[in-house]
Amino acid sequence: MFSGAQISLYPMADDFVGVILGALGALDPYRDRLRIETDDISTLLVGPPEVLFPAMRDLFVAAARSGKHCVLSAAVSRGCPGEPDDPICRSDEIGGPAIPLDDRKRAALGAVRSTPSTDQPVAAQFSLYVMGASDHMDEIYGCIDFLKQSGVFDRSKNFCTRLRGDAGAVFATLNEAFCRFGPGAGHVTLDITISANSPTAV
Amino acid sequence: MFSGAQISLYPMADDFVGVILGALGALDPYRDRLRIETDDISTLLVGPPEVLFPAMRDLFVAAARSGKHCVLSAAVSRGCPGEPDDPICRSDEIGGPAIPLDDRKRAALGAVRSTPSTDQPVAAQFSLYVMGASDHMDEIYGCIDFLKQSGVFDRSKNFCTRLRGDAGAVFATLNEAFCRFGPGAGHVTLDITISANSPTAV
Repeated sequence: MFSGAQISLYPMADDFVGVILGALGALDPYRDRLRIETDDISTLLVGPPEVLFPAMRDLFVAAARSGKHCVLSAAVSRGCPGEPDDPICRSDEIGGPAIPLDDRKRAALGAVRSTPSTDQPVAAQFSLYVMGASDHMDEIYGCIDFLKQSGVFDRSKNFCTRLRGDAGAVFATLNEAFCRFGPGAGHVTLDITISANSPTAV
Repeated sequence: MFSGAQISLYPMADDFVGVILGALGALDPYRDRLRIETDDISTLLVGPPEVLFPAMRDLFVAAARSGKHCVLSAAVSRGCPGEPDDPICRSDEIGGPAIPLDDRKRAALGAVRSTPSTDQPVAAQFSLYVMGASDHMDEIYGCIDFLKQSGVFDRSKNFCTRLRGDAGAVFATLNEAFCRFGPGAGHVTLDITISANSPTAV
């Protein structure tokens, strides 16, 4: 199943190019498991979720260490019918048979709780989109139940859910939301915004 | 039908607060037709598409006039089953009876061609998500046909479509993609990124 993300990193600083270039080394441990293409709007990462989310986390944490207000925006997708399959996307996390929603919630919670801390606090919000399934709201409500128990749930907003906590747990929660909800072989996307060092953070 | 957007403006500048505050006046002509709520991650705009898209355009153009590299990111949504209806969202653009896809493409092209220029060049990319409809890819391919004739089509990327041109035509194209494709009363979202003054623009 094809999976990947279009990601953009926005350091709110005159030296935004320096902050971005200084953070890119964080992607090095993942480069052999990702296809990476950059243009002036975003960087495409093609690969399985178990590589994508840690790669995005490490890139963002590296940029946030600059102390500047930084935002990572990402459109993450799996199973888009318009995309060809790619062997680099082979994953143990997605594409399996559907198991009951309650079991998936439990597995997701276990995965988040076992995630190490990065010591980088972040605020995040995201929307989960499940396409081509008439029961898409059931899956979304199931995911919201999981989020409320995740330890990083902040609050529901119109069109999205806010998370707050350590970058490790937040990215793990996003990974679980992406992999465990919606049909295993279906077209699922996440629209993610992660923020650090905001001067107006509440 | 409930409609609105979560929007964030990212000026890549030490004085990002000043650039944002300096641009906010551009929303004044729209304030009586929008509900607006801001937190440290995004600003919620609730209102009909015919107000949302011009408001986002004028806000972004005002920020881009600073000369700084600026990005606007927005999650735009209509018809989400989880959102209550709101009288401020009453719209002549959405919720009507479905007419044939070819007629919708023609109407969308007419609307884009009649849009005045802002003299602000931008690059953009976006994804259109149509939920809960088994024919969602037909609507997306129909939208892509329209985009290719819109005059601002740049190229297809994985997971999204790139646009390039004047901010007027680009935001009009996004408005048409949002209103004319997907079921009239259905749940449709756009994930939008608009960029100006990038030092690496191609």
